[in-house]
Amino acid sequence: MRFSPLVDRISGKGSDAWSIHWRARELARQGRDVIMLTVGDPDMPPPARVIEAAVESLRAGRTTYSPMAGYPEVRAAIAARHAERTGVPTPADDVVVVPGAQAGLYCAMQCLAGPGDEVIAPEPMYATYGAVAGAAGASIVNVALRPERGFHLDPDDLERAVTPRTRVLWLNSPHNPTGAVMTRAEVEAAAEFCRRHDLWLLSDEVYADLAYAGPHVSPRSLPGMAERTVVVSSLSKSHAVPGFRFGWIIGPAELAGHLSRLVLCMLYGGPPFIQDGALAALTADCPEVGEMAEAYRRRAGIMVSLLENVPGLRASRPEGGMFVLLDVRGTGRTSDEFAYGLLEGQGVAVLPCDGFGPSAAGHLRISLAAPDGRIEEAARRIAEHAAPA
Amino acid sequence: MRFSPLVDRISGKGSDAWSIHWRARELARQGRDVIMLTVGDPDMPPPARVIEAAVESLRAGRTTYSPMAGYPEVRAAIAARHAERTGVPTPADDVVVVPGAQAGLYCAMQCLAGPGDEVIAPEPMYATYGAVAGAAGASIVNVALRPERGFHLDPDDLERAVTPRTRVLWLNSPHNPTGAVMTRAEVEAAAEFCRRHDLWLLSDEVYADLAYAGPHVSPRSLPGMAERTVVVSSLSKSHAVPGFRFGWIIGPAELAGHLSRLVLCMLYGGPPFIQDGALAALTADCPEVGEMAEAYRRRAGIMVSLLENVPGLRASRPEGGMFVLLDVRGTGRTSDEFAYGLLEGQGVAVLPCDGFGPSAAGHLRISLAAPDGRIEEAARRIAEHAAPA
Ligand SMILES: Cc1ncc(COP(=O)(O)O)c(C=O)c1O
Ligand SMILES: Cc1ncc(COP(=O)(O)O)c(C=O)c1O
Repeated sequence: MRFSPLVDRISGKGSDAWSIHWRARELARQGRDVIMLTVGDPDMPPPARVIEAAVESLRAGRTTYSPMAGYPEVRAAIAARHAERTGVPTPADDVVVVPGAQAGLYCAMQCLAGPGDEVIAPEPMYATYGAVAGAAGASIVNVALRPERGFHLDPDDLERAVTPRTRVLWLNSPHNPTGAVMTRAEVEAAAEFCRRHDLWLLSDEVYADLAYAGPHVSPRSLPGMAERTVVVSSLSKSHAVPGFRFGWIIGPAELAGHLSRLVLCMLYGGPPFIQDGALAALTADCPEVGEMAEAYRRRAGIMVSLLENVPGLRASRPEGGMFVLLDVRGTGRTSDEFAYGLLEGQGVAVLPCDGFGPSAAGHLRISLAAPDGRIEEAARRIAEHAAPA
Repeated sequence: MRFSPLVDRISGKGSDAWSIHWRARELARQGRDVIMLTVGDPDMPPPARVIEAAVESLRAGRTTYSPMAGYPEVRAAIAARHAERTGVPTPADDVVVVPGAQAGLYCAMQCLAGPGDEVIAPEPMYATYGAVAGAAGASIVNVALRPERGFHLDPDDLERAVTPRTRVLWLNSPHNPTGAVMTRAEVEAAAEFCRRHDLWLLSDEVYADLAYAGPHVSPRSLPGMAERTVVVSSLSKSHAVPGFRFGWIIGPAELAGHLSRLVLCMLYGGPPFIQDGALAALTADCPEVGEMAEAYRRRAGIMVSLLENVPGLRASRPEGGMFVLLDVRGTGRTSDEFAYGLLEGQGVAVLPCDGFGPSAAGHLRISLAAPDGRIEEAARRIAEHAAPA
């Protein structure tokens, strides 16, 4: 049987990025002691009040259909939180609830770019981005985030990448996988670029609460940017509830209208009891959020300091997020060789970064979503694996 | 700012079908006694064991990321249930979990049809179908389900609708809004048509557990059809949990592979605790399912018998589903006039069916998702509203 052309557009390299993860799960199931540092799945428990709010809602019969763009009070809570952090007035009508930032990126892209359009995205980039653009029929034009710049964006590269077909600049800060946090000056330069070329700025802010080297600056907070910025974020990382699949999109009200019609035919609303749990997360003070951010920062420090003097390795201290990027080029091995050898030989699972883009070739992404002791033990095993045979 | 061409393709008439529903909610909020018979949101509580399974899972920390196509045991349970009902061997690999049948239809269509392709769909049809096809870039070619045939499909109409661009035949039985249940002979004719023209058959079986006039026949159970049938269904109606947003797609394994890559970039998995609740629904005997089906059948009887002799009205006894279709053409009023008048004058909210397709013009869809007493009271008010002024 014949399929639509879409199936080819979503089957890029990115969709294989997690294959080592599944191999590691298989080994763990067989009884191997595997330290899983592949995915960004928080290891700490979510705030209890958030879970109990969802439980109470489930038991109260909140299992009906719900408004397409999310409950008004949930949209209002997201808007208020964004306004408080950025200083930009944000009506609830600008917000659409979606099942996770992943769905937010997908839905936003569907409305912003189509066949023939180009989306500029710095690489390395999160492994799903290629398929998100592909699903919309658009193509990604990569600009390199270079290791020698600490993976920070060079604005001149943007100018070289723009064409008459460019519609969107897609940024992610704090950045997965590199851990770079864009400075205010860098965000300003990107915003100015978007205004000058009349582009949308799609801002993936899923790690916004995990910026530790400097403050997170949302491009939506800059002058003249609210009308062209689309912010996508979620509770997955900040509140350790990726399984809620609760995220949102903030953009101009006209976009929110289009998004409502898209989610009508794509999802027909989201679970009320998850929105009730999310509302608790959005409106209550959750000390756990800060504690988790602090834990990732601490673990990054542990990992980097233990690997810092290992010949052949270069670990960079992340400025935010929940990953350490490890350059293994000095060992003479490819990232695939290093990662699969590390898994089979030492029982440590990390992601080779080649699926994230050519500039990350020879790098591994190490998740910090494991207790400090496991992080230490993983670092020890990585160092051992790096030693020449 | 400029949007993608998609935004125009999803903004058809169907997306306005629910405007009377929102007006009715507004009146109810203002304190009016409104009998809400607009949407198919079950009024009976879901099975307690299903809710408790979800609660237990939430509290057990099942709030992490989960496999893209659903947990293997959940896929296996869906496959086993389908195999048991249809007699067709169904490997778990043929199943992909999605957030509701709505998402199932959307995802399936994305993989089956693209720009330039045609999808044959009988009308009246569920109000989201146009946007689902539009989102994929495909166009709907309608064939009429005629009131004088009890809204059953005429196979000759299919032959007249097919072109070299036809890729999919999209069926829904039990049918929303007409309540028709396809007979085995009708399903066989449709299947033969698909085999002869090498088409996919997309089968929306969301009301499969609510077929009361005759058994539900899945086209996937017919010879040579498993390779070209895509079944979409959910727990929304059968188990009264539309707020779970839990549904599934069953199709050839190759399709399941494409769907897994699509949901990777579109959703990145679904809530584990919802899947745990769904697993309880799929594997335990829930007497509530049969009780609910019986209640809808009983209420249909009440509604139809009270309206049967009202001049100007023709209510058809549904063969399945949770709606009664009411022909108001005999009153000389349009369905919009009748429905808005009924809401403002009598406080009964029902859906004008014009948004479902031209063959349903002059008809209203009355949801049976209200207690028997309210159904009786609604029928009384409808009869009163039908009387000449
Ligand atoms: C950069 C980036 N964007 C988006 C996502 C998706 O997050 P969510 O769980 O909210 O869908 C992730 C998840 O790891 C991510 O790393
Ligand atoms: C014919 C039909 N298909 C699909 C759906 C969507 O159901 P779900 O809640 O599983 O998304 C509905 C909901 O009313 C429907 O009537």
